[in-house]
Amino acid sequence: MKCRKCGKKALVNLKAYRISLCGDCFLEFYRRIVERSIKKYRIFKNDDKILVAVSGGKDSSAMASVLRELGHDFELLHIDLGIYDYSKDSRDKVKELSKLIEKSLHILELRDYGFTISEVKGKKCSICGTAKRYIMNRFARENRFTVIATGHTAEDITAFYLKNIAGGQKEYSEKLLPRTEPFDERVVARTRPIFEMSEKENMIYAILKNLPLKLEECPFAPNPDWKEIVYEIERRKPGFVKNFVRGIAVEQHRFEKKYCSICGEVSTREICSFCRIRSRFISSK
Amino acid sequence: MKCRKCGKKALVNLKAYRISLCGDCFLEFYRRIVERSIKKYRIFKNDDKILVAVSGGKDSSAMASVLRELGHDFELLHIDLGIYDYSKDSRDKVKELSKLIEKSLHILELRDYGFTISEVKGKKCSICGTAKRYIMNRFARENRFTVIATGHTAEDITAFYLKNIAGGQKEYSEKLLPRTEPFDERVVARTRPIFEMSEKENMIYAILKNLPLKLEECPFAPNPDWKEIVYEIERRKPGFVKNFVRGIAVEQHRFEKKYCSICGEVSTREICSFCRIRSRFISSK
Repeated sequence: MKCRKCGKKALVNLKAYRISLCGDCFLEFYRRIVERSIKKYRIFKNDDKILVAVSGGKDSSAMASVLRELGHDFELLHIDLGIYDYSKDSRDKVKELSKLIEKSLHILELRDYGFTISEVKGKKCSICGTAKRYIMNRFARENRFTVIATGHTAEDITAFYLKNIAGGQKEYSEKLLPRTEPFDERVVARTRPIFEMSEKENMIYAILKNLPLKLEECPFAPNPDWKEIVYEIERRKPGFVKNFVRGIAVEQHRFEKKYCSICGEVSTREICSFCRIRSRFISSK
Repeated sequence: MKCRKCGKKALVNLKAYRISLCGDCFLEFYRRIVERSIKKYRIFKNDDKILVAVSGGKDSSAMASVLRELGHDFELLHIDLGIYDYSKDSRDKVKELSKLIEKSLHILELRDYGFTISEVKGKKCSICGTAKRYIMNRFARENRFTVIATGHTAEDITAFYLKNIAGGQKEYSEKLLPRTEPFDERVVARTRPIFEMSEKENMIYAILKNLPLKLEECPFAPNPDWKEIVYEIERRKPGFVKNFVRGIAVEQHRFEKKYCSICGEVSTREICSFCRIRSRFISSK
């Protein structure tokens, strides 16, 4: 298979976009999509002071690296969750990343707030999420950052959406938009600059860029049941996840109300769709 | 397996509800869910004049039958789409149903509007939908019905929702709510009284009630790709579809904004979730 852009031997095949690309053209493609997301969804403002949250994993590392390639100014934040060697390894990878991309790194420890994730009994993931959001927000505000960027992927956002609708919490389902503005001065704006990118695309980007990566899963990671459903839908309909997150992010149109000039029924256009269909048959008879 | 309600031999096993039921208890269970939906989502108003749209298939026939069992007054509308023998069979089944449940039946023919679905080239399903909505609405308004009930199932609604979000038409995704009020006097309100019921539940109900049923699929039915995705999610997470449609239908809560009395961060409660978690550790140390 050949690269769609340059004709060299292709390295990756992206079913969601129905294209095959060589390594260099993939990196360019990845950058362009993130660049376009940032513009289209106004992910950053001109005077933003950006804090980029990094875990040491492929997604947030890819995000930090591509943001730097796109010329953004930012600092890194890593939170040490106190999960034995896993947290130590994560921290080491993040330090390497910080050197590689030449961005200063802040490390905070959950331990300093009185506990670690290892000590938590039950619901570790949910508590870990609460703790990270709390610490990130407080640190960002106290250090005058105006926006926090997190490495949520298209799969994260889709799974979160479906889970929250099915859980009866529709009001949460749209929390993971490309950018959410603070509803209170004690809250810092949040952005998800790689919300259109899939885990696979982030992994390929991170490998091709030779980023320091912690590849083990968190020892407390749950069965990713909602994620697996999302993978399964994507397998059946390549492109679903990308289209779904774009669909969530899209501005809702309002319809203009008109009356069909032929039959008088309500219509969004001059002639209603039923009369448009009929006219094809009636004029031809 | 025994019936959860009466202890007799169970006939059906409903994974979504994690219960097994005998035939009689299933029918009672089905009626109760539809009755509860109608109350909870205000599907009918006291002075509604109801038009029930029936195709001859299991879903709309089950709907008409259960609405009669629940004591609602209504008339039936069937639209003959002009699809060869398929439409003729559908019409016969609907006539039998009308006799069986003793409700008067109106039959309209798409032919009278200048064409039939058989003649349509390409996009038959989409044009069929447009035609049915147009004719139903016009007939209902001209005959002073105040609401049209259609037999959309939980799977229909879930598939429609996912398809429209992924298609970038979020504004359409919530068109299939339990009841949608008209936005113009030329439009008649729509309700989906069996929106919480699955196709399987409708089929069991229709068979147990011995309803006249046309079981063949429409000869023009498309590959049900979105439906199959919905079936697959349900297979992986029994109850998903039911929870999803309830999730779409739920009223959105508004959060009350407070500040945590311990740390001062924004919270939905007196003490924020992070401080609640911390207190468990700090008090125990």
